[in-house]
Amino acid sequence: NALLAEYRLLLGYLGRWLLLGAAVAVLAGTASAGFLVALDWVTSWREAHQWVIALLPVGGLLVGLLYYYLGQSVEAGNNLLLEAIHRPQAPVPLRMVPLVLLGTLLTHLFGGSAGREGTAVQMGGALADQLTHRLRLRPRDRPVLLIAGISAGFASVFGTPLAGAVFGLEVFFLGRLRYDTILPAFLAAAGADLVTRAWGVGHTHYPLLAAPALSISNLLLVAAAGIAFGLTGRLFAATTHAVGAFYKNRIAWPPLRPVVGGVVVALLVWALGTTDYIGLGVPTIVAALQGPVLPYAFALKLTLTALTLGAGFKGGEVTPLFFVGATLGNVLGLVVPLPLPLLAGMGFVAVFAGAANTPLACTLMAMELFGHECGVYAGLACVVSYLFSGHQGIYGAQVVGEPKHRRWLRQQGKRLREL
Amino acid sequence: NALLAEYRLLLGYLGRWLLLGAAVAVLAGTASAGFLVALDWVTSWREAHQWVIALLPVGGLLVGLLYYYLGQSVEAGNNLLLEAIHRPQAPVPLRMVPLVLLGTLLTHLFGGSAGREGTAVQMGGALADQLTHRLRLRPRDRPVLLIAGISAGFASVFGTPLAGAVFGLEVFFLGRLRYDTILPAFLAAAGADLVTRAWGVGHTHYPLLAAPALSISNLLLVAAAGIAFGLTGRLFAATTHAVGAFYKNRIAWPPLRPVVGGVVVALLVWALGTTDYIGLGVPTIVAALQGPVLPYAFALKLTLTALTLGAGFKGGEVTPLFFVGATLGNVLGLVVPLPLPLLAGMGFVAVFAGAANTPLACTLMAMELFGHECGVYAGLACVVSYLFSGHQGIYGAQVVGEPKHRRWLRQQGKRLREL
Repeated sequence: NALLAEYRLLLGYLGRWLLLGAAVAVLAGTASAGFLVALDWVTSWREAHQWVIALLPVGGLLVGLLYYYLGQSVEAGNNLLLEAIHRPQAPVPLRMVPLVLLGTLLTHLFGGSAGREGTAVQMGGALADQLTHRLRLRPRDRPVLLIAGISAGFASVFGTPLAGAVFGLEVFFLGRLRYDTILPAFLAAAGADLVTRAWGVGHTHYPLLAAPALSISNLLLVAAAGIAFGLTGRLFAATTHAVGAFYKNRIAWPPLRPVVGGVVVALLVWALGTTDYIGLGVPTIVAALQGPVLPYAFALKLTLTALTLGAGFKGGEVTPLFFVGATLGNVLGLVVPLPLPLLAGMGFVAVFAGAANTPLACTLMAMELFGHECGVYAGLACVVSYLFSGHQGIYGAQVVGEPKHRRWLRQQGKRLREL
Repeated sequence: NALLAEYRLLLGYLGRWLLLGAAVAVLAGTASAGFLVALDWVTSWREAHQWVIALLPVGGLLVGLLYYYLGQSVEAGNNLLLEAIHRPQAPVPLRMVPLVLLGTLLTHLFGGSAGREGTAVQMGGALADQLTHRLRLRPRDRPVLLIAGISAGFASVFGTPLAGAVFGLEVFFLGRLRYDTILPAFLAAAGADLVTRAWGVGHTHYPLLAAPALSISNLLLVAAAGIAFGLTGRLFAATTHAVGAFYKNRIAWPPLRPVVGGVVVALLVWALGTTDYIGLGVPTIVAALQGPVLPYAFALKLTLTALTLGAGFKGGEVTPLFFVGATLGNVLGLVVPLPLPLLAGMGFVAVFAGAANTPLACTLMAMELFGHECGVYAGLACVVSYLFSGHQGIYGAQVVGEPKHRRWLRQQGKRLREL
């Protein structure tokens, strides 16, 4: 009868996505594991041989030539994946995987300031997209696989399956979440995280954050901090885009851009006399969750990352956003009477929530990384930050699903970069 | 300039909803606090004077007469609120508040099996709706206030601000979440929880649940358990609706229905010889999170709750769903090699996720109540349960936003009760 037919269908659907999710998980989780190991190695080597930073322009040339001669079809990176979800066209070229991997490792080896989620997400998405034609799946499965790949890449590179799953569902729209792909996203994310751990690759351990009971004054303080986080998330996105536009307008030959960018960043690092603000910056993030750090650390990281990524180096924006947020939260501790680690943890997720327009993924991430006690603080900070970053963000191909304020109702359906 | 105007607008929006959210929070949080205290008192009194259960038919008559003569306009309860969000018409009558409060207390006093979220949500929603015309707000603010009221009621009655906020955003659609009201929902939920606690009213403390690292076999076990949770959630909704339809068809005069229902439930309690399966059942829920309970406890609770609510008694479905889920997870521990408390915790949130079609709120709830370690287990269980409960649920006025499977694409935009 009808009920039986319904459950045969649902069981088939579950079984199908257990298998496809497993395939995506193995691909994305393994790619993330290899990437994390290589990134670790590259970072240690750079820190042990800091003279290599003087060669950052050479690294820039390598990345530039790589993408100019082999990678023009995948240059758009994360945005290419978002476009493919919104308007499926040709498959995402598989070369995205080695190119973004190599480009990111070169960027980190020579001392650029960048992240890793872009790399993991692009590897996950591009690998997952291969399954569509290799397994002769229907075209309508393609966006689902892409979402699963993005969820899997994000989940496995940070060790946060729930945040990864919801990130994949949340990222291609501003103000909308796709429920019809919720099962594939969760299965792929949980599976990929499992695969990465099964390879023996661990993640940064952050301290669990204690939080006082919410009070009226604390709620207002969180809202105020959320405004600062949202403005900073927007500033990050705007600066990176502006640097990119500047290089594009001034330097006609693309491979030259990261060369010049490399000179600028290397000189800044030399002037600063520290490598704290390049690479991923994980030690500083951890420090910011524990005690006071330099008050303008967030501005340095924001600047160096915009100069690195805007010039055409590769990597992601998210770990730098964590850095900017954690150190900004930390410095807010000078004036905001909330526990400093809590403020840093709120900033960690909320600047990212504002810059990527993914408040729910970031709320889940806070609980996965810092424990459940900080949940309501992180959630409020993410939501306020989401509101105050406006219709801007690091992903230009993100489409406005529901405007943040009804004043911008006419922007519905447009890409962020068109606004 | 434009940027300044934008931020003046956003600051105004934030300030406005801080104030309105505070108003909703004070109303809903205070109502929840009073309700929780009264419920506690009523439950203790009943347990100390169990002969009162013999008078359950009298209690039924009182509830029936109350709603027949004074409450026909608010009989639809939660569904009335959902309808008002979808198609705003006349304001929700304020009498909903005293009626649902009194009806619920009578139900619990005389030994019906029911919950409390319906009561808190209806009080929060109806009180919030009053603000629209008392403060002469624009009609377009009305759905936002209703959502904020629902979020506030849910958050404050369970002490789970994040789950409450997302529940309010998630509940009126199956498969869609409204981002444009995310700030009001979060502010009202966090505020209402704060207000309830400020009244000195606490919540049940559940144990933090330890969880093993996810493995392939565990992932498959979670998926299998999720199927059981989803089917049970559906069974719960279907049974409650069926009992309701049965009484409606057989007994023409509405106040007589809970009288007959009271006889049935009282006889069952007498036959069972225990009060473990009436009222909220919190002690059994807590026990199920710690060690083995009766294997058919979940079936007893499901039956008694359907017989109570279907006959016209008042209260909510959610705490009984927690009970059914926790005891079902507990009995699954007989065959599923996962830690028994973890299974019970997964069931606690996942049966509810399936019956209410709110997987994200339930995932957050798991972490808020049981700590972050069980997060990925609870999340997977909720998502699978959500899929396997089909297009059914406890809220008939819920509208299909995105179908759970593309086979049911034509049901998009319809209410669950119309399917």
